[in-house]
Amino acid sequence: MDEQALHAVVDAVVRRVTGTLTLETARRLSEAVRAEAARIGVNAVVAISDRAGRPILVECMDDAYIASYDIALNKAYTVTALKMSTSQLKPLAQPGQPLYGIQFTNQGQIVIFGGGEPLKLGDTIVGGLGVSGGSEEQDTALAVYGKQIFEQSGGNL
Amino acid sequence: MDEQALHAVVDAVVRRVTGTLTLETARRLSEAVRAEAARIGVNAVVAISDRAGRPILVECMDDAYIASYDIALNKAYTVTALKMSTSQLKPLAQPGQPLYGIQFTNQGQIVIFGGGEPLKLGDTIVGGLGVSGGSEEQDTALAVYGKQIFEQSGGNL
Amino acid sequence: MDEQALHAVVDAVVRRVTGTLTLETARRLSEAVRAEAARIGVNAVVAISDRAGRPILVECMDDAYIASYDIALNKAYTVTALKMSTSQLKPLAQPGQPLYGIQFTNQGQIVIFGGGEPLKLGDTIVGGLGVSGGSEEQDTALAVYGKQIFEQSGGNL
Amino acid sequence: MDEQALHAVVDAVVRRVTGTLTLETARRLSEAVRAEAARIGVNAVVAISDRAGRPILVECMDDAYIASYDIALNKAYTVTALKMSTSQLKPLAQPGQPLYGIQFTNQGQIVIFGGGEPLKLGDTIVGGLGVSGGSEEQDTALAVYGKQIFEQSGGNL
Repeated sequence: MDEQALHAVVDAVVRRVTGTLTLETARRLSEAVRAEAARIGVNAVVAISDRAGRPILVECMDDAYIASYDIALNKAYTVTALKMSTSQLKPLAQPGQPLYGIQFTNQGQIVIFGGGEPLKLGDTIVGGLGVSGGSEEQDTALAVYGKQIFEQSGGNL
Repeated sequence: MDEQALHAVVDAVVRRVTGTLTLETARRLSEAVRAEAARIGVNAVVAISDRAGRPILVECMDDAYIASYDIALNKAYTVTALKMSTSQLKPLAQPGQPLYGIQFTNQGQIVIFGGGEPLKLGDTIVGGLGVSGGSEEQDTALAVYGKQIFEQSGGNL
Repeated sequence: MDEQALHAVVDAVVRRVTGTLTLETARRLSEAVRAEAARIGVNAVVAISDRAGRPILVECMDDAYIASYDIALNKAYTVTALKMSTSQLKPLAQPGQPLYGIQFTNQGQIVIFGGGEPLKLGDTIVGGLGVSGGSEEQDTALAVYGKQIFEQSGGNL
Repeated sequence: MDEQALHAVVDAVVRRVTGTLTLETARRLSEAVRAEAARIGVNAVVAISDRAGRPILVECMDDAYIASYDIALNKAYTVTALKMSTSQLKPLAQPGQPLYGIQFTNQGQIVIFGGGEPLKLGDTIVGGLGVSGGSEEQDTALAVYGKQIFEQSGGNL
């Protein structure tokens, strides 16, 4: 193994272990999600958080809902904080279900409808993606779209 | 096109694009809604926000509910932040429905029962109207009443 | 004393004892304060609370500071909650002074600079007036102006 | 006046009165500020709000302070909400000065040290720029830098 190949291996290990999501990657991911949103006619807010649930980037497409800023941001928080998509959380948080009430914890940062997806490299969650601006179905589709292109790229968008 | 015609065009453009709701207009609108509330026996709180959801005017009729201040104010926020009436939002936010949970976002500013209506000029939302103090049916009727007289006047109350 | 004179006395007693500030009176008071603000070139937010510190009316003059809504509202709260003007509170709340720290209590509703004045009938505080939008000196002058015309009218603006 | 000239007038009016700051412009402005931050060795958070103080974009450079997200965002709010830079607000908000206490209003959204600058087109504030991540001197220089390139471009970055 030559030196260059070794560096590439080390970089890959570091990336996997630290799960670092750079601003540059977040910007490319958001750009892809926004392009898809524009294609389907949604003015979306896109938020991307690091593995600790802290925001890296928030972008509000022109004429997006005012309310979507908070919702997108907190979808990105929710998926890293609970290690599941907001679609998976949704049924669990309905009245009578096991986690009903979780939406009143964490200072209002838990969102329980679709549009939030964890971003993974292998089995490791390295960040969160939150999308808000369309119907729940549209937001979910956009977040899943973003998750897929992120993961298919191995985090190298 | 002569100068006068040009001025008329410019004025129309300014009004449409700024969507400015003046305090004077808000006061006249609130006065009309309060008169109607008095007629049907409701002590209402009337709140009017600008297109960004920021309050322009809040008026509490004598002996209104203490709780109605917050509710009317946030109905006016909700309709500009989500671009729909609170009556339209209501079914979407019920347990099991697509947006259940939205009422816990935006720091408690989302109201999910009737009495909030967006104020439009043409297709543009230029502000929000929130009414609280009677039954949901009464609040809804009062907000719709206010919306109609605002829009029929072309914003020139 | 004939019956009509008796009623007038009873009304005056009731007004003094209950300290009720009507929306109609609040609207007239705000109108006077706004006229004075316009005269001195200030785009003010005027807030008037009842004796319990709860808002009766808030009016934002066109192009007022966004931040002034919260400040005017809470000046009106502060003066009823602490039974003194915000100018009187100001020196007491400076570092090293007796009430330093009071500005961190009451969920951020305590304002410690000029522009808030209690509204009195005799010795009874019947409401609060908060003005924000100019310099501290201007806000203070406007609130004192409003307090004076209210009190000189005996609450019958 | 021919049709083309009319369109130019209308476009100019629309731009001036709406003062709309698009996401695309905000992204270019943030990119310029981040490039300058990198040049001087600062990991900055850059936040850009619309004229109503609502966020359009937040970007956190890799390894920025966790605390800087909130600070940058609220610097952008402060400058639109009070129509001045946070450097101008700073001396007014010191203990003993006219606006001491303003930092405890508006639910913790008022920032009173350098790094926030209003973005103007002519005399109109069309948005806010907040930068956090370096020393106060560095944040201020970065925000002023951003303000200047925005304004010199006439908002056409």
